[in-house]
Amino acid sequence: MEWKKLGYLNNRGGRSLSKKIKIDINSDVGESFGIYKLGLDEEIIPHITSANIACGFHAGDPRVMRKTISLAKQYGVEVGAHPGFPDLLGFGRRNIDATPEEIQDYILYQTGALKTFALSQGIRLQHVKAHGSLYNMAAANHRIMEAIAESVAKMDRELILLVSASSQREPLLEIGERYGLRIAFEAFADRAYQSDGSLVSRKEKGAVIEDHEVVVTRALKMALEGKVFAVDETEIELKADTLCVHGDNPAAVQMVKRIREGLRTAGVEVTPLMNFI
Amino acid sequence: MEWKKLGYLNNRGGRSLSKKIKIDINSDVGESFGIYKLGLDEEIIPHITSANIACGFHAGDPRVMRKTISLAKQYGVEVGAHPGFPDLLGFGRRNIDATPEEIQDYILYQTGALKTFALSQGIRLQHVKAHGSLYNMAAANHRIMEAIAESVAKMDRELILLVSASSQREPLLEIGERYGLRIAFEAFADRAYQSDGSLVSRKEKGAVIEDHEVVVTRALKMALEGKVFAVDETEIELKADTLCVHGDNPAAVQMVKRIREGLRTAGVEVTPLMNFI
Amino acid sequence: MEWKKLGYLNNRGGRSLSKKIKIDINSDVGESFGIYKLGLDEEIIPHITSANIACGFHAGDPRVMRKTISLAKQYGVEVGAHPGFPDLLGFGRRNIDATPEEIQDYILYQTGALKTFALSQGIRLQHVKAHGSLYNMAAANHRIMEAIAESVAKMDRELILLVSASSQREPLLEIGERYGLRIAFEAFADRAYQSDGSLVSRKEKGAVIEDHEVVVTRALKMALEGKVFAVDETEIELKADTLCVHGDNPAAVQMVKRIREGLRTAGVEVTPLMNFI
Amino acid sequence: MEWKKLGYLNNRGGRSLSKKIKIDINSDVGESFGIYKLGLDEEIIPHITSANIACGFHAGDPRVMRKTISLAKQYGVEVGAHPGFPDLLGFGRRNIDATPEEIQDYILYQTGALKTFALSQGIRLQHVKAHGSLYNMAAANHRIMEAIAESVAKMDRELILLVSASSQREPLLEIGERYGLRIAFEAFADRAYQSDGSLVSRKEKGAVIEDHEVVVTRALKMALEGKVFAVDETEIELKADTLCVHGDNPAAVQMVKRIREGLRTAGVEVTPLMNFI
Repeated sequence: MEWKKLGYLNNRGGRSLSKKIKIDINSDVGESFGIYKLGLDEEIIPHITSANIACGFHAGDPRVMRKTISLAKQYGVEVGAHPGFPDLLGFGRRNIDATPEEIQDYILYQTGALKTFALSQGIRLQHVKAHGSLYNMAAANHRIMEAIAESVAKMDRELILLVSASSQREPLLEIGERYGLRIAFEAFADRAYQSDGSLVSRKEKGAVIEDHEVVVTRALKMALEGKVFAVDETEIELKADTLCVHGDNPAAVQMVKRIREGLRTAGVEVTPLMNFI
Repeated sequence: MEWKKLGYLNNRGGRSLSKKIKIDINSDVGESFGIYKLGLDEEIIPHITSANIACGFHAGDPRVMRKTISLAKQYGVEVGAHPGFPDLLGFGRRNIDATPEEIQDYILYQTGALKTFALSQGIRLQHVKAHGSLYNMAAANHRIMEAIAESVAKMDRELILLVSASSQREPLLEIGERYGLRIAFEAFADRAYQSDGSLVSRKEKGAVIEDHEVVVTRALKMALEGKVFAVDETEIELKADTLCVHGDNPAAVQMVKRIREGLRTAGVEVTPLMNFI
Repeated sequence: MEWKKLGYLNNRGGRSLSKKIKIDINSDVGESFGIYKLGLDEEIIPHITSANIACGFHAGDPRVMRKTISLAKQYGVEVGAHPGFPDLLGFGRRNIDATPEEIQDYILYQTGALKTFALSQGIRLQHVKAHGSLYNMAAANHRIMEAIAESVAKMDRELILLVSASSQREPLLEIGERYGLRIAFEAFADRAYQSDGSLVSRKEKGAVIEDHEVVVTRALKMALEGKVFAVDETEIELKADTLCVHGDNPAAVQMVKRIREGLRTAGVEVTPLMNFI
Repeated sequence: MEWKKLGYLNNRGGRSLSKKIKIDINSDVGESFGIYKLGLDEEIIPHITSANIACGFHAGDPRVMRKTISLAKQYGVEVGAHPGFPDLLGFGRRNIDATPEEIQDYILYQTGALKTFALSQGIRLQHVKAHGSLYNMAAANHRIMEAIAESVAKMDRELILLVSASSQREPLLEIGERYGLRIAFEAFADRAYQSDGSLVSRKEKGAVIEDHEVVVTRALKMALEGKVFAVDETEIELKADTLCVHGDNPAAVQMVKRIREGLRTAGVEVTPLMNFI
């Protein structure tokens, strides 16, 4: 936990006045579409602090966006855009070799739509997090990450850009710096990591950790020490500002409650990104 | 032209300080999609004062939206949203029995997306005009018009709502009043009108007037007198704040130049809605 | 049950050689899309005799179509197309004022796609049933019903056209005659009927009957007597060749088992349409 | 022209009874969508022998499919499916990392839909040619080519699979053999080739040859000798069964007329693939 003690409370490098460690819990929500329901939004939203809302390209639709914002508002959860590739059929999980310019246009379009729904309910967006393949492609290719950062900066420099903590940290902070954006790093307490800080592919066995006790312990280690045990049992650094959790099923919701409770008990303040990034 | 002299310079009833009659010229642009090109936007935009830009549901896409805003900006043309039904296959020209709530969501989504592209280029939207079937359904059904007005008001009360001058005027002004929105009435110089002020259906012969001289004369009569000759040759009132023109083909563009030149020669000031509504 | 005894075993008027009354049980399946799952297809398909498979416009996608056909094949269930309006967002449940020609094109496209998936698995389509608003619009407007019949006839006159038993019977049989198609009438055991044979709107209370005992009794009355009690408790004629059942939830699946068991016990043969229409 | 003299008239290796060299001319048509018009189909179709018709995923719609088949029928032009990725926004020109199984489903769906429109007009499909990125990905990755071949074989082994002549010839013939399909190789008279037989990328200068004389000469060399001069001026083998031409603009149509006239004058028989493959 040295990095926290030394005042690296966030990527801005500001010295912490409070002694309390802060972390955000985010979840991908608003992924229903038309008659199709996906995710237990009503159950998961009360337990998170930041909601990543789909914007109609890979999931979500205008009605779902409005209703999800309303639900987040009801529970005081901060709202962010979760733009993806225009691929509803593939749920935005297939790589599309769109140009950086096309990607910028997609981010602006989707985030703009969501922002307006939020404003019409008196809410300002807190962050933007790319979805699915767009998120992965950006993590692997800084030219795409830069396109995303540039598009977010064109809209509103108060928006926080949420990226994977498994990515190399410095180049991302540098991109944030360049576009005047705050960067928040997210980690997954229920996902296995390689010793280089990258996620174990979902195609491999053991990629997703299902034991709630283990997941809670990992979440605590991430929050308190900025570290995690990789699949090869080496301890690696993984400084996360936010933990991504899932609301796919009742067990997942249960796990989120456990994580939050565990963090609270350990003295960690679970609070939206905007309060400490 | 009595109504202008008497100070009915606009629907807000404000007394005119200037003696000059003002009118806006609007056109539906940004209707290309992906590889598909529709309309001579580059040629028509320099001659209009307000651009209604498609928002991706019935036409337009993120790239086209950005580029069209950029083009409008280049020529000092004011920009508005032109939201339609989610029916690219039917170009938004088929009635869909969406609920007023669904329509509100569609307006917010589309206008929000466009607004963000505009703001990212330092431009603020001037107006909203429903497209195609949504426009027609709103003209015929005040419950739908109200849904549109409400959604626009939720976003930004500075936005002007553009409606058909062939509609009954009073109820529309009343809706605008109720939601705190300015209403602008549009007329079509190249379309034939019934004696009740409604448009002759495109399915009927003579619905579209192709003789440039006749169209220019009608535009002048609309601007100077707030009147037009209906198909039965009766003279009817048709107070328009803006004339809708088309950029489908070179002849159409030529006609717009003629109309604008005619208005200028007659001493009418052609200027964006925001300057006088 | 007079009409059965008199040999009106089906709309072709063919005299029954067997004394056994035959009825089909159909269900709308294959309505999942991409990541979105809808309906308990795996659980309902074993209990029906005809499967109406969505074709990608209002629901369903290529993968779902292939898999649903495969599932139907596994249980010896006959397969039919369930084409709808191109409105995934509205699940094909919103009226779209498409022209009869557009509707024909939509039917041909969708049924053609499904037919090819079926043939590639060695299966021939048994029937076509319009979905949602298209089904309702066809029931209310014979010009649309005729467009559907014509498009089906253009493909394959062996296809059975499935229509609502609540419609007037004669004009539909006449349309079938004209296009050389067999018509099958479907009824809903769990829906309330008006005394004129039309369905009580879902917007009204009591439109859907949830008591399993009552539903089974109604199904039996439909199958054995070709009659049903309307909401005003009058007994009306409702000759159905097939009963439409739902697989939305476990209780619905349970009800289907009860219906089928009830029919079997009463000596009714539950068998695909093609065996007796 | 040795390969022709030696009887390699086609990839089936059948010995030619006729002394006349045969070649097909194909073009991508039916790419309009809704209100959007693309390509001069009415002008180009009379001059080709095989029409590749878009099937609604990357371009085309049910109405356009029907009308294009009707146009081809009118001129005795053979019809084939031109399935692409579900990416109307990107016109199917962006790589999507779909699985081979997804690609099979897309091919079956689209070709099935087109086939049914064709059959409803009394026409049988002659061939299938993948579009855009799907075509390019298949040329670069035999696993994808195989998925395409397998899906075509599942539908109808009489269908000819059209592939790029710039690909390695043997593995493709082998795939055809394995799935019992005839393979036809296509070349582009107006495109520059690398000395390894691959196309010069459109991003490079000189990729498209615009001089009509040069293009006609190249077409003749391809047809008569099965050879072409590469960009480095080496003469390479390029055995093509069909030449792909474009109908984007009046000049392109003019070029097709010139090519066809050139072939005729040189004694080459321009005839659909099915007549000689």
